[in-house]
Amino acid sequence: MGAGKRELLTVGVDLGATNLRIAAYSPVAGLLETVAIPTRIQAGPLGIVRDMCDAVERLIGAHGEHRETAGVGVGSPGPLELPAGRLHAPPNLPGWDGFHLRAEMERRLSIPVEIDGDANVAALAEYALGSGKLLAVDSLCMLTLGTGVGSGIVLDGRIWRGASGMAAEAGHLTIDPGGPPCGCGNSGCLEAYASATALVNAAVRLAAARNDGSIPSANEAARLNAGTLAAAAREGNADALTAYTAAGRALGIGLAALVNLLNLPLYVVGGGVAQSWDLLSPSLFEELHRRSYVYRLTVAGGPASRGIPGGGTRVVPAHLGPEAGLLGACILPLQQPKTSCRRDASAAEPVSS
Amino acid sequence: MGAGKRELLTVGVDLGATNLRIAAYSPVAGLLETVAIPTRIQAGPLGIVRDMCDAVERLIGAHGEHRETAGVGVGSPGPLELPAGRLHAPPNLPGWDGFHLRAEMERRLSIPVEIDGDANVAALAEYALGSGKLLAVDSLCMLTLGTGVGSGIVLDGRIWRGASGMAAEAGHLTIDPGGPPCGCGNSGCLEAYASATALVNAAVRLAAARNDGSIPSANEAARLNAGTLAAAAREGNADALTAYTAAGRALGIGLAALVNLLNLPLYVVGGGVAQSWDLLSPSLFEELHRRSYVYRLTVAGGPASRGIPGGGTRVVPAHLGPEAGLLGACILPLQQPKTSCRRDASAAEPVSS
Repeated sequence: MGAGKRELLTVGVDLGATNLRIAAYSPVAGLLETVAIPTRIQAGPLGIVRDMCDAVERLIGAHGEHRETAGVGVGSPGPLELPAGRLHAPPNLPGWDGFHLRAEMERRLSIPVEIDGDANVAALAEYALGSGKLLAVDSLCMLTLGTGVGSGIVLDGRIWRGASGMAAEAGHLTIDPGGPPCGCGNSGCLEAYASATALVNAAVRLAAARNDGSIPSANEAARLNAGTLAAAAREGNADALTAYTAAGRALGIGLAALVNLLNLPLYVVGGGVAQSWDLLSPSLFEELHRRSYVYRLTVAGGPASRGIPGGGTRVVPAHLGPEAGLLGACILPLQQPKTSCRRDASAAEPVSS
Repeated sequence: MGAGKRELLTVGVDLGATNLRIAAYSPVAGLLETVAIPTRIQAGPLGIVRDMCDAVERLIGAHGEHRETAGVGVGSPGPLELPAGRLHAPPNLPGWDGFHLRAEMERRLSIPVEIDGDANVAALAEYALGSGKLLAVDSLCMLTLGTGVGSGIVLDGRIWRGASGMAAEAGHLTIDPGGPPCGCGNSGCLEAYASATALVNAAVRLAAARNDGSIPSANEAARLNAGTLAAAAREGNADALTAYTAAGRALGIGLAALVNLLNLPLYVVGGGVAQSWDLLSPSLFEELHRRSYVYRLTVAGGPASRGIPGGGTRVVPAHLGPEAGLLGACILPLQQPKTSCRRDASAAEPVSS
């Protein structure tokens, strides 16, 4: 567009049910400025879009003078229909059913807006700037274990969105058909075992079942989260340890499905629960090894591991922290256009003008 | 290569544990000639490769005079490492562990040989020449329910092979972690419910459990297969019907995983068991509907179905019959090279010289 090669600027938005995080980003300098504001759920989608767009415009004003604005990227809760950029009854954003997020933002901003699922953009960041970059792989799948279990799949350097943007719902893989109910209508979903919510619920249930007076009070239960539970497990709390082991087991079964179906070189596990990798990973790898012959053949040292980037199929904790989603939103506008060729550039490389 | 535009010729090989099927194929005329010869397992891999190559050379001699030979395609049992073209302890081909099938065939034939998994090439055929062509989709997943359960995934017109050729092992998705053991080392695999073998075993087990004298004799059991079992179900045999219903249920759980992960426009179910779609599909769709909110959103008429080719996510019985694997092997050498762009041509279009 402009003459010469100007530095690019993007703005990324992490649309969360509690907070909006908005950042200005340059492929050269990285994150330039990050702001966080509360998500005014009661203001409805139009009010929240106004808050987002005001922040986007302020950041472009502050950082865009000597840069070329390449676009705005948004990581959104789902279910999200793409390329329409329309939400379908998102459980965490009441009042957003049928809302055309992309169209409304583009109407306000008059610059291109790329939208994708929050777990998809986190996977993109991990691919382009995290463990995927470190291991030089062209594909990965990332699971994010938070309040729910999100996931994103990057194939040959691009987010795999599927026919309507709803791919990579690994959190709703059935782990046990007769397992606990999930908000999605299914029972026994991965999310019902391996989210922070599920982990806390499992520990509280286990304590109650022991019937020895160790049930946490309502106050204590409200303070429990993946971190406090991990601390308890390390101090010898059997229920906390059992909950982590069960989550790891479910993850191993889910990862076996992903390895058997996709045969990717890298699977990344992020989110708060994954920070206690030492508690999670033993049962995870035990199940994965048992339930995926593809994993046994392709893990480092396996008979079919040599041609795989990184030396064999890997399952690792995330390299990026909680900022993965925001970073992914920032680099989303720099992804190759859909018509370009595979395997020629990483998503972090700017599209030349 | 040659001057002008000559018609292309390929030879496809379906390497089965019982029979070798070899065909000459032209994109213009279709199958030109098909031969079938027994697989001489006792002759070992080199003997079988000689049989295959002799037949390939005979077919090229018979049909290649006025055509340009584009290559040979082989659909092979797995586990198969790609692009090496090497087998890893294939359960149905004893003595083939570590055998470099591709290298040995190219050494003998001195023409390019493309190798892929038997279920992958069947999926490619269904994509390029079957239901995928009819519905004009760019991606699909096909399950083949035979002695085992094979599967293949085509994304944007190309077989998804994964990092080492071992993707698309949907037959080894865990349906129930505590389910019946599978030959792969896992328990509760889809294959342990929905293969013809599993179906017959389930019906025999059910009859035995009834303890009312209706257990089939060893002779009767040996005659049972997916077809005879379907006939019995239609004549009111409760055990046969229950076995089909259970297979459909497992398929629905497995398909829910595939829909949630890949969000493809089309899932195809082929093989002998799928011929009784009326017996299989009610429980299949019941589970799929319950266990995949992505399916509920994207099925024809669903709120996010409009942008999907074919009008929404579809699950259909295969359009091609048992020749899918052989046809897929025939068109494998005509696939676009790995460096080409997505979404520009179907795999059935010849690569122009």
